[in-house]
Amino acid sequence: MKRRVGQYLMDCISEFGVETIFGVPGDFNLTFLDDITERDDMKWVGNTNELNASYAADGYARMHGMSAMVTTFGVGELSAVNGIAGAYAERVPVVQITGAPTRSAEQAGAYLHHSLGEGSFDDYRQMYEPITTSEAYITPENAQTEIPRILTAAWTEKRPVHIHLPIDVAGEEIEVTETFKHPRHQDSDVSDLVEAVQSHLKEAKQPVILTGHEINSFNLHDALEQFVNQTHIPVAQLSLGKGAFNEENPYYIGMYDGQVAEEQIKKYVDNSDCILNIGGKLTDSATAGFSYEFDLDDVITINHRNFQAGETTSQDAHLIDLVHQLKDIDVQFDLDYPQYERPSEEVQVSDDALTQKQYFAMLQQFIKEDDVLLADQGTSFFGSYNLGLSSNNMYIGQPLWGSIGYTLPATLGSQIANKERRNVLLVGEGALQLTVQDIAVMMREDIKPVLFVINNDGYTVERKIHGERAPYNDITQWNYTMLPEVFGGKDQVMTHKVDTSKQLQDALNQIDEHSDRMHLVEVKMNIDDAPEKLIKLGKVFANQNG
Amino acid sequence: MKRRVGQYLMDCISEFGVETIFGVPGDFNLTFLDDITERDDMKWVGNTNELNASYAADGYARMHGMSAMVTTFGVGELSAVNGIAGAYAERVPVVQITGAPTRSAEQAGAYLHHSLGEGSFDDYRQMYEPITTSEAYITPENAQTEIPRILTAAWTEKRPVHIHLPIDVAGEEIEVTETFKHPRHQDSDVSDLVEAVQSHLKEAKQPVILTGHEINSFNLHDALEQFVNQTHIPVAQLSLGKGAFNEENPYYIGMYDGQVAEEQIKKYVDNSDCILNIGGKLTDSATAGFSYEFDLDDVITINHRNFQAGETTSQDAHLIDLVHQLKDIDVQFDLDYPQYERPSEEVQVSDDALTQKQYFAMLQQFIKEDDVLLADQGTSFFGSYNLGLSSNNMYIGQPLWGSIGYTLPATLGSQIANKERRNVLLVGEGALQLTVQDIAVMMREDIKPVLFVINNDGYTVERKIHGERAPYNDITQWNYTMLPEVFGGKDQVMTHKVDTSKQLQDALNQIDEHSDRMHLVEVKMNIDDAPEKLIKLGKVFANQNG
Repeated sequence: MKRRVGQYLMDCISEFGVETIFGVPGDFNLTFLDDITERDDMKWVGNTNELNASYAADGYARMHGMSAMVTTFGVGELSAVNGIAGAYAERVPVVQITGAPTRSAEQAGAYLHHSLGEGSFDDYRQMYEPITTSEAYITPENAQTEIPRILTAAWTEKRPVHIHLPIDVAGEEIEVTETFKHPRHQDSDVSDLVEAVQSHLKEAKQPVILTGHEINSFNLHDALEQFVNQTHIPVAQLSLGKGAFNEENPYYIGMYDGQVAEEQIKKYVDNSDCILNIGGKLTDSATAGFSYEFDLDDVITINHRNFQAGETTSQDAHLIDLVHQLKDIDVQFDLDYPQYERPSEEVQVSDDALTQKQYFAMLQQFIKEDDVLLADQGTSFFGSYNLGLSSNNMYIGQPLWGSIGYTLPATLGSQIANKERRNVLLVGEGALQLTVQDIAVMMREDIKPVLFVINNDGYTVERKIHGERAPYNDITQWNYTMLPEVFGGKDQVMTHKVDTSKQLQDALNQIDEHSDRMHLVEVKMNIDDAPEKLIKLGKVFANQNG
Repeated sequence: MKRRVGQYLMDCISEFGVETIFGVPGDFNLTFLDDITERDDMKWVGNTNELNASYAADGYARMHGMSAMVTTFGVGELSAVNGIAGAYAERVPVVQITGAPTRSAEQAGAYLHHSLGEGSFDDYRQMYEPITTSEAYITPENAQTEIPRILTAAWTEKRPVHIHLPIDVAGEEIEVTETFKHPRHQDSDVSDLVEAVQSHLKEAKQPVILTGHEINSFNLHDALEQFVNQTHIPVAQLSLGKGAFNEENPYYIGMYDGQVAEEQIKKYVDNSDCILNIGGKLTDSATAGFSYEFDLDDVITINHRNFQAGETTSQDAHLIDLVHQLKDIDVQFDLDYPQYERPSEEVQVSDDALTQKQYFAMLQQFIKEDDVLLADQGTSFFGSYNLGLSSNNMYIGQPLWGSIGYTLPATLGSQIANKERRNVLLVGEGALQLTVQDIAVMMREDIKPVLFVINNDGYTVERKIHGERAPYNDITQWNYTMLPEVFGGKDQVMTHKVDTSKQLQDALNQIDEHSDRMHLVEVKMNIDDAPEKLIKLGKVFANQNG
């Protein structure tokens, strides 16, 4: 079958069920974009800039399992690196396709626009190396090996890849000899590693599971829960990967975040003699600056390509094999562990100024079973990761990479990936300002997320670390509820501005009443108010930098 | 004298007269920011995001000669790479300072937020290598050698540098043994090279000078003009570097842009037997896809670190030495060359829809002698680089790097660098949407640029290359004149919305009347209308990608 290379690339990407391609047009990708827009099974969603496109692609992939975006050479691909690096750190498979100058221009070392003007064309690809799991330079000759290889790498490692696609290559016809099919995981026997886990567990008096983001990346929730139900080992989640474990499961004990964890959880985990870290990462922000008090020698690390149980180690084992084969472990415990109770504080609404404490308590009541919650790194994340979720909820944060502004375009991506579920964005105004223009894309695409924007006069998370009243933590005050009108139509979005708990309750009621609309809620709160966890973590971070 | 390393760094930067530091706060730079805000001779101007900060720093440096910006580790520094790469390509000295984790965290390989979570801390510095002239990792021990070295490198090469500053290093006190002083150019004898130029000129019948951006970067306008006045060789400018030559000089013949140049200029240059390329670069966009018809063997290249006159070559010679010593050339010509005439078309204003042709003709009348003109890559640049400027005007474009959206934050930077001169931004709505939020920073800083936003329903430059009606070239329609109200106050900015030449004339009159205000003009024009040069260049670029 004859296909242009560009068509063939999109044929392969479509095998992953990717239906939306994000990005920004540019002259080195324009003709290739036709290979996207001409398809019935795909839609082009142009973003306002490439950083936003990379965030949107990240959000789409977290929801859908894979995503793709297109930029032009140089200017476009370099604007996307922060988003791609975040996807790398947090294991999200985003395919970044760069439309590039022709091979003949490259061979001639031409001084092209978007190049550095010195005849070199591989600098940007090199810059992508540390932040992608693999890269490919596509030619007509290698397309049928390199494209399957690179997409399979993204899917297998759950990390971004970079494709350099010269625009003349995209347009060249090749004879497709074999249709690419969605890869399947090839099971590997990891019984020796699983046995090592078992032998540690057999000695354990007070085991616990810490779990995190890799369970979300590799979609291993069911296998993990099966292991837990079988062994009766209690589970705590790390904030890096909330959603990894079903919070309705009776073996769930709550969030573990080092010294700032709830006393009973902290006590149980810190005194554990066998900590199974399944798909989690003990980062500074997830552990309040490495403030765990358990013995690191008691930790069994069951991570993707990183296994350690005492002397037994592996840098090859795939997390899917590890977690699936955990069920072969023949132990069962009967432990006395802290019972998790979902927060359920009732707020007495009033005309007094709304507090952070009330805000998050009211959000707890507001969240529906099937909601997707996105929380930007800062007040919104640190205030919300202790919310109790149902097994159907999904929670998206970015606490390892921690790029403020990420969640707004990520909401665009996650909401487009599944338009049926309500997406609820929690973001602060400082973060919103970085990536605000993709609200216009949300409106153009006619999606209906609910956006809560905390307006409390500046970068609160920074204030709590250093510079409580420093001018660099101030930001300009905008009229946030006017944004929809600027972006093309005020009628499309219901806006709400709330200062008190009573006003917030009214807004929440209206959102429920008008679930067919997009909503933007500006939530005014006091400049000094902050979630308790944020205040504590601010001090931890300040000390870390001392 | 005891100084903290952070203070010492800012002492050294202040030697270059840098009074404004751009950037975004983050926990790995917060305490260092105090070393900026505590100074009387510097001001911190926080941007809404780091890409915008890098563009603002670029604009400041083009006006002022040098600039500095601060980001946090990872998320911040990677968001700035596109802007820094542009500064590298177009030779603009921007000092990018990354506030980084402590040395002890790095030595421990800690899983910190903003890292890739695998214990490595030097990936981002490596990513900066291809786009900076030099980089430095500052320690208390090397601060007094590395900081002077790196700042001198930026100043000497007129290119960006990257400084990795661990936050604990910034806070550590050192004994400053020698105060850093602004470097001085060390003259080198390049008489052998200049003699090679002279011997070619002595043979020449129809010499011409092509000049460009390096003259602006190295501020060599006077030396170049002296050489011209002495030798009487006519001069054409490349669009990459408009402003390199005084357009009021009698030896100026106009813009040379290959096959799309005015007939008489094209003829003179293409038939020249000795083309002195002084500080210019023959890029695709400056030459309509390399469509010059002169013989490349007749080109004498007098560029920074790139000299070639026949067999005589040098990769070392500094442009300052080359251009200053050109005055030793003893030739004088009496040539018949095309006389430059500044465009002066009078537009008969009417109630008909405004055309691109009228728009730029009216701008020609509007520009004042001392204005700084910034034009975004696209309709605005291709329509404006043929405007006639006075010797005092300054013109900022980015045609080599060509990152759309660059000019809005660049205007913030250039206007802050000199608040006395009126900055006039010409930008299209597609470009504006990428970086729009820094209008809020303009308003906060109370500067008074004049912003012209062309609204013609999409990415016009892309339409003219490929996809005239393709959905990927559409953008969402915003209410641009409401932006000031969203960003904090409608009274501060006068807004104008024009559809006809009569309305545009009214707006221009009001801008002149209210010169103490910032202005935003939305200029509606037809979707298919475009400057003639853009239409021609669109075809050239389309062919280049075929």
